[in-house]
Amino acid sequence: MPDSLPPDSVGLVEPQTLHFDEPLTLACGQTLPHYDLVVETYGDLNADRSNAVLICHALSGHHHAAGYHSLEERKPGWWDSCIGPGKPIDTNRFFVVSLNNLGGCHGSTGPISTNPDTGHCYGPDFPVVTVKDWVDSQAKLADRLGIKQWAAVVGGSLGGMQALQWSLSYPERLRHAVVIASTPRLTAQNIAFNEVARKAITSDPEFYDGRYAEHNATPRRGLMLARMVGHITYLSDASMGEKFGRELREEAYKFGYDAEFQVESYLRYQGERFSETFDANTYLLMTRALDYFDPAYDYDNDLAAAMSQARCEFLVLSFSTDWRFTPTRSEELVNAMIAARRKVSYAEIDAPWGHDAFLIPTPRYEDIFTAYMDRVAREVQQ
Amino acid sequence: MPDSLPPDSVGLVEPQTLHFDEPLTLACGQTLPHYDLVVETYGDLNADRSNAVLICHALSGHHHAAGYHSLEERKPGWWDSCIGPGKPIDTNRFFVVSLNNLGGCHGSTGPISTNPDTGHCYGPDFPVVTVKDWVDSQAKLADRLGIKQWAAVVGGSLGGMQALQWSLSYPERLRHAVVIASTPRLTAQNIAFNEVARKAITSDPEFYDGRYAEHNATPRRGLMLARMVGHITYLSDASMGEKFGRELREEAYKFGYDAEFQVESYLRYQGERFSETFDANTYLLMTRALDYFDPAYDYDNDLAAAMSQARCEFLVLSFSTDWRFTPTRSEELVNAMIAARRKVSYAEIDAPWGHDAFLIPTPRYEDIFTAYMDRVAREVQQ
Repeated sequence: MPDSLPPDSVGLVEPQTLHFDEPLTLACGQTLPHYDLVVETYGDLNADRSNAVLICHALSGHHHAAGYHSLEERKPGWWDSCIGPGKPIDTNRFFVVSLNNLGGCHGSTGPISTNPDTGHCYGPDFPVVTVKDWVDSQAKLADRLGIKQWAAVVGGSLGGMQALQWSLSYPERLRHAVVIASTPRLTAQNIAFNEVARKAITSDPEFYDGRYAEHNATPRRGLMLARMVGHITYLSDASMGEKFGRELREEAYKFGYDAEFQVESYLRYQGERFSETFDANTYLLMTRALDYFDPAYDYDNDLAAAMSQARCEFLVLSFSTDWRFTPTRSEELVNAMIAARRKVSYAEIDAPWGHDAFLIPTPRYEDIFTAYMDRVAREVQQ
Repeated sequence: MPDSLPPDSVGLVEPQTLHFDEPLTLACGQTLPHYDLVVETYGDLNADRSNAVLICHALSGHHHAAGYHSLEERKPGWWDSCIGPGKPIDTNRFFVVSLNNLGGCHGSTGPISTNPDTGHCYGPDFPVVTVKDWVDSQAKLADRLGIKQWAAVVGGSLGGMQALQWSLSYPERLRHAVVIASTPRLTAQNIAFNEVARKAITSDPEFYDGRYAEHNATPRRGLMLARMVGHITYLSDASMGEKFGRELREEAYKFGYDAEFQVESYLRYQGERFSETFDANTYLLMTRALDYFDPAYDYDNDLAAAMSQARCEFLVLSFSTDWRFTPTRSEELVNAMIAARRKVSYAEIDAPWGHDAFLIPTPRYEDIFTAYMDRVAREVQQ
C-alpha cells in the first residue's frame, strides 16, 4: 500500500459504466440488443475534443490501465508505467480512455453478464466477438464521448491488433495508431498454443460445456493450465533463465513431482491466482479473437492492399526477444504499410523480457514512445 | 502395409525380454529388487564383440527403433531412417541394441508393472529414475550381452543425454558418444513446459494420485494436453506454418470453439492418439528425468570439469530451428568438451523441422552421421 500516491501517477480513478441501447451486430451474425462498457478516463478532454487517446487492452486486460482505485490498492493499473503525467502517454496533454472490451469479465457485457433472453448469465451463449466487433463498439463509445477523431489509438499485443483494425475500419477517425508487440495475424504455432489453452478449459470436467455457473462450478484446473502455458509464451527463455535458472526450492532433488524448481512454483502460483479471478468463457473468447484477426483475409491475403485503406500514421514497435509475436511479424506489417505508402515509424527494441516487454519500461522504449506521442500532442490544440 | 519390406530395412524383428535379478540402487535411494528390460537387436555381433552400438530413446520412445514387427505393421521403428543396411547406423557393420528404458510403458519394468511388494501395479510407487540410473541399467544390459565396450552410444534429445552420461559414468565402456539435438541441461523454460505437462496430468480428476489403474480410470485429458503442448515444442514455428498455415477445415469461420484451423484438429488428434497408448506415470517420470539431468551439478556447475571425466570421442549435432534444445545448448556442451580437451566433431544442421529434425533424414544430416559412423566402423574388426 503506498503511503501517498506517486507524483507521476494519475492518482485515484473511478471506473464508470456506460450503457448502450442501440443493438450491435457482430461479425458472427448475432446481435447484442444492448450492452455495457466499463471505462476509465485520465486527463482532460480539450475544447475541440482533439486530444483523446484510446487504450486497447490485451488478452487478460481490462479498463484499469493507470492510477489506483483506492489508497489501499497495492498495484496501479496494468499500464501505469506508460500512462500518467510526464509519461509516454502524458495525461497533462491527453485525455486517455481505457475500456474493458465486450466479452470481458471486468464489468463490460460478457459471458458473466445476464442474458436478457433468459434472465441467467450468458455463459457459452455469449457470441464470439472479433477485433472488428470490438472496434465497432469502441466507435460507439467514441460517439458517446463526443470524440469524432482519436489523436491516437494505442495498444500492445491483442491491443495492437485493435489499433490496427481502427485504421482500417474507421480510417478517418484516428490520426495515429500505435501498434506494439503485435502481429497482423497469428501463426499456426500461436493458434496451437491458444488451442492447448482452450482444450485445457473445455476438457475440465468442471466446465460443463461453459455452463459452470449454473452448476456452481469453476473450471479452475483448466484456467490454471491455460494461464501457465500462456505465461511461458509471454516470457523469453533468457528472462526465465535469469529469473529462475534451475534454482531449487530446497537444497537437493526430492525425486518426486511436487514443485522442486522455483520456476515450477512460480508458474503454479500464477496459474492458480489467475484461475480465481478470470472467467473461463471470456478466456476462450479472447483467444478466438486473436485467432480470427487477419486483416489481409478480406484482400486475398494481400496485407498491403488491406493497409491501403488506412489514412492515419503509424508507430510500430517490437521487442528483440518476443518469440510470441516476433519482430519479423512487425516487419511484415511495416513492409505492407510501406508498400501501401502509409507513413510509419518502426523500431525493434532490444529487451530481454520476451512478449511482456511491452509492459516493462526501458529507456529506449520510453524514449521512442515518448518522442512519438510528443509529436502527436504537438498536432493538438492544447 | 508394405507388400514386401523395403530392401534397406532390417526386416522383421522381434523384441525380447531380459530379466535382471540383481537389485539396482537408484539415485533417489530406492532399490529395484529385480527388473525386466525389453530389447531389440539388429545386425550381428562380431567375434570380438567390438561392433555394438547402443540406441537410447527419447521421452516417448521405446525399444522398437527399426524394422517391422510384422508384415502388417504400417510403420517401421521410430528411427528406421537411420538404422539399417547402408544407413548411417549400418546394420551390415554394427550390432545395434535398442531398449525400452526402466520406468517405460512398453514392456520394461515401470509404473504399469507389478510391484512385487504388493502384487498390484507400481503406479505412483514406481521410483523416479534418472538418466544416470538408466545408464546403470544399460551397463547391466551390456554385461548380459557380453559387451565390454560399445563402439558407440547414440541418442537424440533425452537419448543424447544418456549417450553423454555414458561417457561420464562408464568412460572406458564406450569409444564414441553421438549426442543429437540434446542439451547438457534443461533451461527454466524447458522445465516450465514439462511442469505444464505434469500439472495437466496430475490435475486430471481421473489421475487419482497416480492410482488410476486401481480405479479403472485413465487421465486421458491430462495426457492429451501434455502431448499437445509437448508436440508444439517439437516443431518449429516455420514448419507448423508450412504444414498448416492458417488453413481452415471448412470454408469460413464458424465463430465457435470446435477445431476450425487445421492445426487445431491435428494437435487434438495427436493428443488423443497418444493418450490412448501412453502411461501417465511414465510420462511424469520421463519428464522428471529430463529436468534432473545436469552433469555439471556435481562439479560446482563446471561442465568442462564434468566432461574431463570422459574418455570417448564425441559427435554432437544440432538443428538450426530447434527451439526446444537450441544449437546454443549444443555449443555450450561442445565448448566444455573442448575446454576439457576431449575430441569432438560438431555440426549445426540447417533443417526447418525444429526439434523433430533429428528423426527426419536430410542430406547433410545423413552425410555427416554416415561419415562419422563409417569412421567408428573402420576402427572395428569386421
